[in-house]
Parts: sequence; C-alpha cells; structure tokens
Amino acid sequence: MSTPAQANIGVIGLAVMGSNLARNLARHGHTVAVFNRTHARTLAHLESHRAEGAFVGAETLEEFVAALVRPRRVVIMVQAGPGTDAVIDQLAPLLEEGDIIVDGGNAHFEDTRRREARLREVGLHFVGTGISGGEVGALEGPSIMPGGSPESYAALGPILESIAAQVDGEPCCAHLGPDGAGHFVKMVHNGIEYADMQFIAEAYDVLTAAGLTAPEAADVFREWNTGELDSFLIEITAEVLDQVDAATGRPLVELIVDAAEQKGTGLWTVQTALELGVPVSTIAESVFARSASGDRAVREAARGVLRGPDRELPAVERRQLVDDVRDALWSSKVVAYAQGLEQIRKASDEYHWGVDIATVARLWRGGCIIRARLLKQISDEYAVGRLATLLVAPSIRSGLAERQGAWRRVVAAATTAGVPVPGFSSALAYYDTVRAERLPAALVQGLRDNFGAHTYGRVDRAGAFHTLWSSDRTEVQL
Amino acid sequence: MSTPAQANIGVIGLAVMGSNLARNLARHGHTVAVFNRTHARTLAHLESHRAEGAFVGAETLEEFVAALVRPRRVVIMVQAGPGTDAVIDQLAPLLEEGDIIVDGGNAHFEDTRRREARLREVGLHFVGTGISGGEVGALEGPSIMPGGSPESYAALGPILESIAAQVDGEPCCAHLGPDGAGHFVKMVHNGIEYADMQFIAEAYDVLTAAGLTAPEAADVFREWNTGELDSFLIEITAEVLDQVDAATGRPLVELIVDAAEQKGTGLWTVQTALELGVPVSTIAESVFARSASGDRAVREAARGVLRGPDRELPAVERRQLVDDVRDALWSSKVVAYAQGLEQIRKASDEYHWGVDIATVARLWRGGCIIRARLLKQISDEYAVGRLATLLVAPSIRSGLAERQGAWRRVVAAATTAGVPVPGFSSALAYYDTVRAERLPAALVQGLRDNFGAHTYGRVDRAGAFHTLWSSDRTEVQL
Repeated sequence: MSTPAQANIGVIGLAVMGSNLARNLARHGHTVAVFNRTHARTLAHLESHRAEGAFVGAETLEEFVAALVRPRRVVIMVQAGPGTDAVIDQLAPLLEEGDIIVDGGNAHFEDTRRREARLREVGLHFVGTGISGGEVGALEGPSIMPGGSPESYAALGPILESIAAQVDGEPCCAHLGPDGAGHFVKMVHNGIEYADMQFIAEAYDVLTAAGLTAPEAADVFREWNTGELDSFLIEITAEVLDQVDAATGRPLVELIVDAAEQKGTGLWTVQTALELGVPVSTIAESVFARSASGDRAVREAARGVLRGPDRELPAVERRQLVDDVRDALWSSKVVAYAQGLEQIRKASDEYHWGVDIATVARLWRGGCIIRARLLKQISDEYAVGRLATLLVAPSIRSGLAERQGAWRRVVAAATTAGVPVPGFSSALAYYDTVRAERLPAALVQGLRDNFGAHTYGRVDRAGAFHTLWSSDRTEVQL
Repeated sequence: MSTPAQANIGVIGLAVMGSNLARNLARHGHTVAVFNRTHARTLAHLESHRAEGAFVGAETLEEFVAALVRPRRVVIMVQAGPGTDAVIDQLAPLLEEGDIIVDGGNAHFEDTRRREARLREVGLHFVGTGISGGEVGALEGPSIMPGGSPESYAALGPILESIAAQVDGEPCCAHLGPDGAGHFVKMVHNGIEYADMQFIAEAYDVLTAAGLTAPEAADVFREWNTGELDSFLIEITAEVLDQVDAATGRPLVELIVDAAEQKGTGLWTVQTALELGVPVSTIAESVFARSASGDRAVREAARGVLRGPDRELPAVERRQLVDDVRDALWSSKVVAYAQGLEQIRKASDEYHWGVDIATVARLWRGGCIIRARLLKQISDEYAVGRLATLLVAPSIRSGLAERQGAWRRVVAAATTAGVPVPGFSSALAYYDTVRAERLPAALVQGLRDNFGAHTYGRVDRAGAFHTLWSSDRTEVQL
C-alpha cells in the first residue's frame, strides 16, 4: 500500500507515552503518522483512538516515512538507551536533508550531543526533547523542553507549542538551546523532582512524629496547596495520604513498602553536577535517601540495634509546628531550585548553549511534575536580570528571611527527636554556607598544604603559598 | 651503553612521588632502575640520592628494560590520564610474557580494568596500585593497595611489603583483588579523607563560634589526638591551627583563602557510589562543601544579604561543648567509614573481586592520610565476620549509643546558631535513617505510583500493586 504524504508529524513507539502524545497531536488538528515495531500495537492504537483525529498507520518504516510531508518531523518515543540508536539507524537512511528527528525519551544529554553531531553530518536535524508530565501530561498537555538547532525549532516549535500545557496563555514549550540543552534541562527537572519529593516525605514524617494521622496530614497538605506551596506534588500528596486501603481500612501509605525506587535521571543530575563543580547537595541527599531506604540488609541489621530517641518531638503547639514545617518545606524547596538552576547555568556556559533561566522556569510552570506557583515567581525574578543565585532574588530572599527561624526549629527538633531530615538539613546547611562571612574551608586548604603541598591562597596577597611544614615552617611563595 | 640485567624493580617518572618511591625501594636493599622522559631529571635523581642505595639510571626505555631481571617489575609514577597510556604504549612492546607493569598513580578504576584486560591479552600483568601517604609516605613508608592477578602479587608483593608502612609488625600492603580492586579501594580511601577533613573543619568552626581562638582549638585537637580520635589528620590539624603567620603575627588559618580545592578522586567516589546505589551522603556533602566554598560569585552575592543568626551558640559550659563536638566528630567519622566500606563491599560483589574488608582497614592503619586508631578497631570488627554495616559492630554501636546524644546537641546547636554543619548533620540523618522502624519512603512510592504508575509493594502481600488514581481508585495487582 502506498500512502500519499499527508501527515505533518509522525510518532514512532506507541507505548502509553507515545500513544498519548500522538493522540494529543491529533486532537490539536495535526495529521499524525504512527508506527510501532509490533504492528498489532499500531492497529490497536488506531482502533481505539481513530475518532480523536487524523492518524495514518504505517506497517513499515518506509510507509511511515512516505506518509510524512517535508521537512519530515519524526518523534521517537521508545525506551532510552540502545533502542533509540537502533531506531535512528533504521530511520536515518530513509530521510532526506533537512528532515527532523525528535527524541522524546529521557536520554542522557551526552548521548543526545553524540547523536546530534552524527546526524548533522548527514544533513538531518536531531532534537533531544524533554517531555514531562507523565502519561496524563503527554495526553493533556506536557511541559516540553526541546534542544536542537534554531532551524529545526522554526519547523517544529509551532506544533509542539500547540500540544504543550498552556499557562496564562503561554505554552510550556520553548527552544532551550542547541544539541543536548533540552535533555539537560529535563534531567535537572527530574533531579529537582527528587528533592521536592524528599522534602514532602520529611514534612510528612515530622507531622507523623507530632502525632498527626495520615488523613490529618492530608488536610495539612491540602491547606498548604492553597498558599505559597501550591503545586502538583503537594496536591497529589494529599490525595495519596487520603487513600484508604480497601482490604484493611487503614491508610494506604502505611501499607506501602517503605523502600523508594529510582530510574536514573536523579543520579545523572548529581553525577553531572559533580563534573561541573556545582553543589547540588539537596538532590544528592534525595537520591541517597532513596537508596538508603532500599538497603534492606543494612536496615534489618540496624533496626532495634542502633540506639536513639524514639521520635519524641519537643512539645509545641500543633498550629506552630505545622506552620514551621510548611516554612521548612518552602525554604528547602527554594534551595533545591537554586542549586538545580545554577547547574543549568553552569552547563549552559560550559557547552555554549545560551539557555535562558527565566524561560526554563516558565516552561516548568505547567504540565510537568514539579509545576508549582513558585515557578512563576522564579521566572519573574530571572526575567529581571542575571542572578548569581536564586536565593538573593528580592522576593525570594525576603521569603527566606521570614522563614529561616522556623526552618531551624524544624531541623533542630527533628534532629533531637531522631527523625531523619537529610533534605531539610542539607538545604539549610547550604543556605548557611553561602551566606557565611568566613568558612572553615581555610583549614581544609591548610591541611592539604600540610600533607600534600597543594598550596593555598592568602586573603591579603595574591599568589600561591606553601608552608614548609616538615622543616622550619617558613612560608614560600610559588 | 649496555647495562647487564641487575635491577629487581624499576620506576618510570621521577617527579617527587616517583623519586621518593625509588629512594624508599633503594633504601630497602632493592636495585632500582630509574627512567624519566627528561633525562636531566634522572641524572638529578642519581646525583642527589646515589648514596641511599643501588640505582641504575637509564637514558632510554630500551636501556631501562634491559636493566631489569625477569619477571620485570616496572612501576609507572606519572600523572594519571593519557600520560599513563602513552607510557604503557611505549613500554609494553619492549616487555616479555610474565613481566609486570604497576600503575602507582591515582587512575580511575575503570581505566585500570581496561588496561589490565588489554595487557593480559599480550601476556603482561598490569597491577593498578593505590599508594597513599603523599610525598613523605612514598619515602618513609606508604599504605599500598595493589590490585591485579594473584601471580603478579607473588612476584611483586614481597618488594612492596618491604617498603610499606609497618604497624604492629605487619606491612600496610596486601593483595586486594583482581584488575581495578586496588585503585577502587584507593579512590574510596580518598573519598573518606574528604569526609574526615570536612568533619574536622566543622568541629573547628563550631569551636570558633564558641569563642575559642585558633591556638585554643589547636590545644583541643592535640588533646583529642591522645584519645579515640588519635589520627594523622587530627595531629596535623593541631599543627596547622598552631601556625603563626610571620608577616602579621596572626594565626595562619585566618589568612588562608577559605575556598577549598579538589583534584577528582572525591567526586569519582560519589559518582561511582551513585552507579552502585550506595548512599555515601557524607562524602557527597564533603565534596559539595568544597565546591560551595569556592563559588565566589554566589558567596559574594549572598554574604550580608541572606539573613540568619550570627553564630550565637546556646550558652553551654566550654568543657561540655568541647566533649560534645569530639563525640559528634567521632560518630560522623564512623558513618563515613561505614558508607565507604559499604561501597567497597558492593563494588567487590559487582566486579567479583573478593575484597576482604578487614584487610582494607588493616592497610589503612598506617602510612596513608586517613590512618587512625579507629582503623584497628574496624579491622578487628570485620575480622570477626561479615557485617551488614560497620555501624552494628559491637564496639562501634556501643560507641555510637554513648555519643549520639552529644552528636544531636551539636547539630541542633549549630543549626540554631547558623553555623553550617552539612557533614555532621548528613551523618546523623543517615544513622537515624538506617535505624528507623519505618521511613516516609512509602509516601515517595505512593507519589511515584500516582503520577507515573511506577507501582509499589505492600507490607502485607507479595507482588507489585497500582492504584487507579485517576479513575475509581481501586487497587490492581500487576
């Protein structure tokens, strides 16, 4: 069968994310070519969703390519990794100069850079694109973070913008920068998501230690969702905490195995930040909190054996405690955003991407997992001008000034009571580190000079200095 | 000139570490062939150190190889990275089956695995070897951590053991396992060193906030060095804090720029731990504390602008404070060792190395930067049998039980006073995490199931479960 070119975009890979993205495109008036390695899935997609818009099903990649108008726009929605390379290898020879391949999976940005360079050599555009919002977002309007060449965005952007989440009349989609910029921004989005979730978990844990039941904690989160913490994750936290298990009549959260899993983008964020020299301590603590929770052997050996207080929080009026925890949560969240955005800025400098941080925050206002009221504030602050760190933006720093007392009370109380708050305390330590007049890092430099002759700088003179520690202890300038 | 084979070991690369290692070998009765790319340095080495033992200087690699008895043992002491590959590429064709190349630099263990596999194919042994102790250690007795084949150790081990640090009549050198095992152990050694130094810096910072001067703090560290904290780093901390700047008459530490630098093994430790899924949160916080201290733009923007308390510690008797800080330091240190040793155990399982943790701790008792009284205790505990975590070893857990109250007081007081203690608080959060009866990771799993259908386990039934959050909220088993 020969299909005349009529589709203005195509989707390869019709698992739930790909199928939902194709439906979203069709619902917005696009004619969508669809292809899946197992043809039965293509047929099932057409069978279920034909009424939603114009689909062109293809049984072979050749048919699929023939169905697309030029420049061809092909979105690959397959499992990140070797599968992506396999699809590209089959697809690229069928395409022509100026055609555009979009990778909508969670690829590592270095893979995206490699693929983009390779395809550019044969005249094809490769657009690594972050897509956040899960299955529902893919269907109803995700946050879309495309990298790639400006030319590719001219041809592709309007289509992506039409299906993205819309906030205040603006699409949550914009060109972020060349090659790996889109996937990098999506990776850091996920890293921040880890931190957001860890802070929520710590807030819940402290509330529980204070005697709140799961439904009472749900009420607290619901109330928080009407204020400055208003966000998707806070909203669904209330939903999860309210869920009653049908079998036992108990709150579901008390029956879920307390070992958190992870898929990889969180740890990539930390690994990349280490390369770049950006301290993303809150994200690292969140990734490690998940691995520690899942370390069954260690937990079984330690439980009941290691001594400590049994979660007795200091007596405090419940209203005050709830408000304090809310402030600790907001402040910690701000630190995680500051660290993540700093990582994007540093990578953008390193790779010459020219990423605009205000745009990043704007894209995250809707559609994605970390969407939150706070992101409008962040976007507005970065729109005013370059910030050395989010923490010093006027509305942010005043918010932190008001809340830092409460934040300290929560960390001190949880620490005293034996409730682990690695995220809250790491965020607060970062806050106190960057605002410090003087850090004990000077001693670290002194020690490094002592055992390794690594030299040190002096506050009162330029140059590198070394003390002759093992002879007469005079100082030499190098 | 033709040199008859007479040297039983050779050293390539005569910068300070290589030269000192060659001297150490010669002083122990070995005949040492020496070679440096720039021959002048070889001549300078011979000129300065001929009286210390038997050296054979070589002007070419061919001469160097000809000077060695078989199996030839060649130690490469050049800057880690491409330089190592270059030397191997020149050297390997000159060697014969069964000869042994030792890399004594700080190579990444994955590079070591790659090199070992390649050289094994051509019949050569490649021994990636960690050497710790800095310049002084290389000369007077380092801690030596060799990987590689058991056959290579039979030929090489006795020589290395003869020049290693000796503790209680035992050399701080033993075969750790095949291919990358030695360099992996050395990498984690350095990661722990980062944590040790960060804890010391935090202890000093808290003491300073309590009003102690640098020389008073030096006295405290000197006193600590007579007890359970007895270690090289505590000893030199007293030395550094005591140092008076000749130009100003002030303590030197107050004149050193408070931006800590790093060379890479600390961040490799964290990156590798992330791959392995081992929570090394204390090491990560230490690496990030260094990068945060060096982030001049952020610190300049935040200093004086971000609000918080001005280091006013709660009033407490000085003796009590000093003792509390000592206990926080010891406890945090134990957590860093627990995390690092867990990382070695997990890597050993992953790569089938068979590393014996008691041996690792034994090698670290002398010669290396982290040498400490604690390491004998750790080695003894692991010698009794496999531990799920160091924290539950009988003498360790009782030590933690006695000290955890003080540890909490220090973290709570520093948090309240605005003194950043990211290391102490991260260590304590880990302690409270692994001993927890129940963690809020259950909520994280609930959230992941809600937005991403990632499923969860139940405490009361086997299997994977999913709640239909966006329809009727019933639970399905998958």
